[in-house]
Amino acid sequence: MRFTFPLMAIGLEVAMIVLFGLFVQYETDQNFSQQPNSTKSPTVDVDRYLDLYPLFQDVHVMVFAGFGFLMTFLRKYGFSSVGINLLIAALGLQWGTIAQGILQSHGEKFHIEIKDMINADFSTATVLISFGAVLGKTSPIQMLTMTILEIAVFAVNEYLVVEIFGASDIGASMTIHAFGAYFGLAVAGVLYRSSLKEGHRNEESVYHSDLFAMIGTLFLWIFWPSFNSAIANAGKNQYMAIVNTYFSLAACVVTAYACSSLLESRGKLHMVHIQNATLAGGVAIGTSADMANTPYYAMIIGSIAGMVSVFGFKFLTPFFTTKLRIHDTCGVHNLHGLPGVIGGLASIVFIALETADRSAMAMQAAALGSSIGTALVGGLVTGLILKIPIWGQPADQDCYDDSVYWEVLYSVLRMYMMTTPGKVLLTSCLDVPRRTELDMFSRFHEHGNHNQLEPEA
Amino acid sequence: MRFTFPLMAIGLEVAMIVLFGLFVQYETDQNFSQQPNSTKSPTVDVDRYLDLYPLFQDVHVMVFAGFGFLMTFLRKYGFSSVGINLLIAALGLQWGTIAQGILQSHGEKFHIEIKDMINADFSTATVLISFGAVLGKTSPIQMLTMTILEIAVFAVNEYLVVEIFGASDIGASMTIHAFGAYFGLAVAGVLYRSSLKEGHRNEESVYHSDLFAMIGTLFLWIFWPSFNSAIANAGKNQYMAIVNTYFSLAACVVTAYACSSLLESRGKLHMVHIQNATLAGGVAIGTSADMANTPYYAMIIGSIAGMVSVFGFKFLTPFFTTKLRIHDTCGVHNLHGLPGVIGGLASIVFIALETADRSAMAMQAAALGSSIGTALVGGLVTGLILKIPIWGQPADQDCYDDSVYWEVLYSVLRMYMMTTPGKVLLTSCLDVPRRTELDMFSRFHEHGNHNQLEPEA
Amino acid sequence: MRFTFPLMAIGLEVAMIVLFGLFVQYETDQNFSQQPNSTKSPTVDVDRYLDLYPLFQDVHVMVFAGFGFLMTFLRKYGFSSVGINLLIAALGLQWGTIAQGILQSHGEKFHIEIKDMINADFSTATVLISFGAVLGKTSPIQMLTMTILEIAVFAVNEYLVVEIFGASDIGASMTIHAFGAYFGLAVAGVLYRSSLKEGHRNEESVYHSDLFAMIGTLFLWIFWPSFNSAIANAGKNQYMAIVNTYFSLAACVVTAYACSSLLESRGKLHMVHIQNATLAGGVAIGTSADMANTPYYAMIIGSIAGMVSVFGFKFLTPFFTTKLRIHDTCGVHNLHGLPGVIGGLASIVFIALETADRSAMAMQAAALGSSIGTALVGGLVTGLILKIPIWGQPADQDCYDDSVYWEVLYSVLRMYMMTTPGKVLLTSCLDVPRRTELDMFSRFHEHGNHNQLEPEA
Repeated sequence: MRFTFPLMAIGLEVAMIVLFGLFVQYETDQNFSQQPNSTKSPTVDVDRYLDLYPLFQDVHVMVFAGFGFLMTFLRKYGFSSVGINLLIAALGLQWGTIAQGILQSHGEKFHIEIKDMINADFSTATVLISFGAVLGKTSPIQMLTMTILEIAVFAVNEYLVVEIFGASDIGASMTIHAFGAYFGLAVAGVLYRSSLKEGHRNEESVYHSDLFAMIGTLFLWIFWPSFNSAIANAGKNQYMAIVNTYFSLAACVVTAYACSSLLESRGKLHMVHIQNATLAGGVAIGTSADMANTPYYAMIIGSIAGMVSVFGFKFLTPFFTTKLRIHDTCGVHNLHGLPGVIGGLASIVFIALETADRSAMAMQAAALGSSIGTALVGGLVTGLILKIPIWGQPADQDCYDDSVYWEVLYSVLRMYMMTTPGKVLLTSCLDVPRRTELDMFSRFHEHGNHNQLEPEA
Repeated sequence: MRFTFPLMAIGLEVAMIVLFGLFVQYETDQNFSQQPNSTKSPTVDVDRYLDLYPLFQDVHVMVFAGFGFLMTFLRKYGFSSVGINLLIAALGLQWGTIAQGILQSHGEKFHIEIKDMINADFSTATVLISFGAVLGKTSPIQMLTMTILEIAVFAVNEYLVVEIFGASDIGASMTIHAFGAYFGLAVAGVLYRSSLKEGHRNEESVYHSDLFAMIGTLFLWIFWPSFNSAIANAGKNQYMAIVNTYFSLAACVVTAYACSSLLESRGKLHMVHIQNATLAGGVAIGTSADMANTPYYAMIIGSIAGMVSVFGFKFLTPFFTTKLRIHDTCGVHNLHGLPGVIGGLASIVFIALETADRSAMAMQAAALGSSIGTALVGGLVTGLILKIPIWGQPADQDCYDDSVYWEVLYSVLRMYMMTTPGKVLLTSCLDVPRRTELDMFSRFHEHGNHNQLEPEA
Repeated sequence: MRFTFPLMAIGLEVAMIVLFGLFVQYETDQNFSQQPNSTKSPTVDVDRYLDLYPLFQDVHVMVFAGFGFLMTFLRKYGFSSVGINLLIAALGLQWGTIAQGILQSHGEKFHIEIKDMINADFSTATVLISFGAVLGKTSPIQMLTMTILEIAVFAVNEYLVVEIFGASDIGASMTIHAFGAYFGLAVAGVLYRSSLKEGHRNEESVYHSDLFAMIGTLFLWIFWPSFNSAIANAGKNQYMAIVNTYFSLAACVVTAYACSSLLESRGKLHMVHIQNATLAGGVAIGTSADMANTPYYAMIIGSIAGMVSVFGFKFLTPFFTTKLRIHDTCGVHNLHGLPGVIGGLASIVFIALETADRSAMAMQAAALGSSIGTALVGGLVTGLILKIPIWGQPADQDCYDDSVYWEVLYSVLRMYMMTTPGKVLLTSCLDVPRRTELDMFSRFHEHGNHNQLEPEA
């Protein structure tokens, strides 16, 4: 990626600046009313910019710190997880602003409100979800390409769902979570590497990397009520979206812990489940977050999502890898895919129970189908494009390893041995370039033997 | 905990859903006024939901990220610290909503506002504080039980303090901090393990675990003004609660650093003090946060709290462990107990200086006594229940060790030795199950000798 | 620092309490209007305290968690980075409140609003920026002294810029970022240690310390729109400051990644650039954040800042260290210095393009000159004071090492060797005091030889 990456990044940024120059404007002074009375009028969002701003900031934390740290669980891939997450989101929010704005304004110049910044952040979330499916197996150049392609498809599908079908998806269970997950799975399927079927020595976590990942989990969990309510209508709907998400997530945590312990050997808890399944309740309540007018609905949805997600990690992910030849690094199908589908179906059930409005139910179903369909098609096409060997893909043995694209030194023990056996060695740290460490590792494998670790009689 | 834990968790969640179905309702549309004029009327909280929501989110961060990471200082107990913290809080906020709501509505159905979500988060804080006192020595099952019992007692005491005594405790120094600390100390006293009196090899921090703990400290410190002001009356009181807490915490940091250096050998700073004592000012100003109408009051309270807290860590905690047979893992008595009492007493002093209203002073004293009394009694009873050997308690040698309840692999060095002495070894990482690591460790103790580490002549 | 540090800290806190008693008051009840209509009137800030409070909290996160963790990249200096950052900011916000208040009230008693708390946090940012330039080479006592001196000079310069020149610097590119950077560079120049010219074995990061630093980077990046808009006039200006910063930062990330890859060997990314240069866009748009009324302006500024910052890290920092004898540990010149100057110049360009108001342009230039001038003079004087050998400066070999001022145990391998060569060793962790570790290290250097690490034929 000596020159391809920098030139591509610069080129994309220049394109964004040009597009913003052509299409994007700020609110005009007139739109800022002078009389305080109208302050809270829900129609004039621009006067409520400071009401929405804290919700935007919560979503902003989720996108940049939440998604970023959630993926740092891999022992040698933390730089890429937070770093490429930042790059994707920074480019994506600019491109998302353009893509969504042009579609809604039908090619005219358009204004930006805080709400549009929230939607721009949302659009990047789809790519970050898909990023989780291919984490460790792609190059930064491929991610730049995927960002542009996926957000374009996302914007079209969102336009279909909201403007054409008139479906309701306030928490974006369908348009963001299901879409991002199935888009990512499709890409991962096309980019499948048979040689990694048996797993890769770097595809594992260490103690501290799991703790870093919990930073992501907790900030996603904490701010999810803002994610599901940020673009809801002020008043009852927004209030319900907040409270429903709050209780759905709480219920989800309890059932996720229960299932994790139930399915693991000797009833132990597994960090992969705690890091991911505890969030499924936020995804699953999304679509109906502003519909459910009694909290126990939300708690049932959350409870189901937590259980389904853990089952997915335990049984579906291995099945996908071995049988379907789709390797989902972060298990986004269990955190975003299945719960997203549950969210869409739940909204149909709610409408059936509340109003039994058949056309509304049909539109929700259409929205779910459209989100999954466009995601799979878009993902397949994107995958085929990313398969072209011009994007600096990492070699199989270099997967899940920051040092391919980052300046990294690994700590290896440097030691001086006392001449008398039985004496303790002096040790301290030495950093060696990755290649040396690999040589040492392979050399070990020639001579080393794990059984030797067992204490001798 | 093969089946007990999952079944108990599922059962509790089902119970919560049923209770919510029976008692909890959402605000009705009528409560959302249409005319913007009444927007800020402090009586109709539901219209101010977006004003309160950012304060709720701050408290939410403190409860889930703040308390969780604050306890990750132990080298091998990080998963449980953030993980069980999340489980307790997720179950607790549901149970707290029910317990507080039923008491206030006298058994009727009740509505939920953002303020109730804040109070639900508050109720979990008591359990999280008590969790700190028994950290590393209990099982997840015991924590589920403690969550249900402690929040019930807390709700009753809070009802007494607020509704019956009509006492003022805006920052909950007495009802949350003192209560949580003394409840936890009582439980810790009942569950005392003499064999750990000398300390445990895992009861120590490592460099990175202390940094993870600072994530908790800083987010607690930063958002504490929201904790103390979230449920205050809008206007002057809420504004004063914010500013007083801001300055009390700032003063507390300076004196905590000073005392830490003063008491440590060679004037060094100690991370335990920095992680905890710097927060004592937020606890101690709590009760009088909306009373003190000049900031230097708050700064004096904060300065005293910072010093008292460090002294507590240095002298009281060892005394409690050895003499009182109460082992307080996180030293919650120094962060929440003593500063909580200071907070209650300070409120009496303020009233004496301002209005000298004897009955008000008596009610504050009654509130403090009631909080400590119910905590000690409730804690003793809870401790006795948790002592029953049916909760999967960890064995003494397994304390402070995630691997008892979590899937954990410990990194151990795998090395291939060059045949020539004096040569450097090739090393790389190998993960072994806990048992092996323990065997290796004990085996070392038979042969090893620390003095061998000293460089030879 | 056996007694100097604690006594100095206590003395300073007592002084703060006295000064607050003499000068600082809370808002009076009358200032809290009773009629809801006037709620949003932008003139009465005190009624908008809950509108501003979330922005204050965002800035609060940046100052205490953002700056603190950003500096944890050094492998052995994490405690001091987050710890001394907390101490400086806690003392600084009290002193900043006094210094700014007295200047604005011309020595009268003054009231505190949320806006004043934001400004107090801002004043500490200057010291935290300068702290980055001398990180690892100073004592806590020196930092207390620098906090008092720098904030005094900052308050005077800010008064000049705002009150006298009437210049506009909403995001404080000049008064905080440029000022803090050049003040720190001046101090670093005076305290230059020739012996460290070749670098220091502790002046390096390890894998996890770089991840901790990313916590700081991300929270700074996320909340920067609040930093640049917090004290802007409500309405159009505040809204523009938010949106401009949002897009400037996004553009900056893309160009920073491009340049990092372009300048590193084999096109790899470097964490130092990602941690710092991605934030330059927030600094550079600061002064004109509320002027630029089309987003592509902001994106151009951000793109330039990201590139300039990376170039600075690659070429300027080494030049400063070797040629100018100014060693800038964190490279604050590249993150705050250069982008701050760009921000000042950009404001002049904007005025030239928009109104061509010559006097306004002159005042902006005066503000930039005054900020850099007072910073350099103040920094030189402060540096000379800090050079007096009474502040417990660390010895050269003790630089960048927490254990000089903190209780720290370093993990060293404790191992028992099997008698048969070729067998694997049993290992586990042992903590030794710093001195031992140093002895072991030096002893290693006598016998050890890196080349021995290469696998033998």
